[in-house]
Amino acid sequence: MFEEMVTGRNTRPPNPKKRSGRRVGPSNSHGAILHTARTLFGERGFDGTTMRGIAQAADVDSALIHHFFLSKEGLFLAAVQNAFVVPGLVEMVTEGDPEGAGERLARAFLAHWEDPEVRPQVEALIRSVRAFEEADSALCDFVGGEVMLDVTTALGHGKAEVRAALLGVQLIGIVYLRLVLKVEPLASMSVDDLVCYVAPTCQGYLTERL
Amino acid sequence: MFEEMVTGRNTRPPNPKKRSGRRVGPSNSHGAILHTARTLFGERGFDGTTMRGIAQAADVDSALIHHFFLSKEGLFLAAVQNAFVVPGLVEMVTEGDPEGAGERLARAFLAHWEDPEVRPQVEALIRSVRAFEEADSALCDFVGGEVMLDVTTALGHGKAEVRAALLGVQLIGIVYLRLVLKVEPLASMSVDDLVCYVAPTCQGYLTERL
Repeated sequence: MFEEMVTGRNTRPPNPKKRSGRRVGPSNSHGAILHTARTLFGERGFDGTTMRGIAQAADVDSALIHHFFLSKEGLFLAAVQNAFVVPGLVEMVTEGDPEGAGERLARAFLAHWEDPEVRPQVEALIRSVRAFEEADSALCDFVGGEVMLDVTTALGHGKAEVRAALLGVQLIGIVYLRLVLKVEPLASMSVDDLVCYVAPTCQGYLTERL
Repeated sequence: MFEEMVTGRNTRPPNPKKRSGRRVGPSNSHGAILHTARTLFGERGFDGTTMRGIAQAADVDSALIHHFFLSKEGLFLAAVQNAFVVPGLVEMVTEGDPEGAGERLARAFLAHWEDPEVRPQVEALIRSVRAFEEADSALCDFVGGEVMLDVTTALGHGKAEVRAALLGVQLIGIVYLRLVLKVEPLASMSVDDLVCYVAPTCQGYLTERL
């Protein structure tokens, strides 16, 4: 459902019948809207963000946002779609020393969330839980769905769904305390230190007998 | 701050100068208001719940809620104050076999959250993050503050703040996926099974070398 909501959009700008004085349709508007949407949804959540506010901050006409993304929900899902999608995750975790799988998994996500284009996507998703069904669904996909389950299935130690869910617990907990609540000492801890602390837990959930 | 906000309230009903037709001030109104507030805040979060809605659902006059709790924020904090407070936690974890400390900690919280008066408090807190500062602060207290830090300090394995935060990560992650998002297989897993799965992680964060 997540995928269906964010694909198949027309990426060409609409024919600008009337000019409102704002920038309408330069070739990078699509990216500018997504960037602005990530920032505002991340700071204020889905309910606290308006399409008008995004249009103003991105300096585009509201009609262009509707043209690209159809609705606020469509824009939100397009804006947050990479929050938990680490490119090449399965290979990264499963190839190499099996004893280091947990560390590689932890480092992959923590490094992913340091990306300034990704971090607000994560915050936006967490802050928008219960705002609308697809926001919840996107988070559920992360823990139960394609992201983690592919890894635990590939490793082949059984109970793949339980392992995926337990890894989701660990990583959502980190996201929540480090990125959203900004609890110390987690918030200002280096990625390396945090990887050291949580790698044994990830290793256990990935490979040890449950 | 959390404590200050919820103590020192007058628990006697106000002098009912005008009758509105609703029940004003029977001796159990205080408890009925708290019970109703927990349910509604848990379902809808802080922003989605009104004082009027709570008064109607609890069948009391709004003035009585203001008299007891002064404000919506005061009512919220009073309603959720036991979300993470497990009576006798430090003794429960530190006394007995040191190898079983993690299991006892996990079981204590998971059993606490099965209580039908406690579960909505946890959901209310999680769903109200960023709604107002004290809601965040109450959650932060849980992980950095008195609850977990007392346990990790009492066990005396060093890095008490880091250990407390890592335990907070694990438990908030469980709360989030099991109680709020209701992700399977976590949501319908028995407390005993879940304790088995997460006890080694809690044990590691409590006692192993970091």
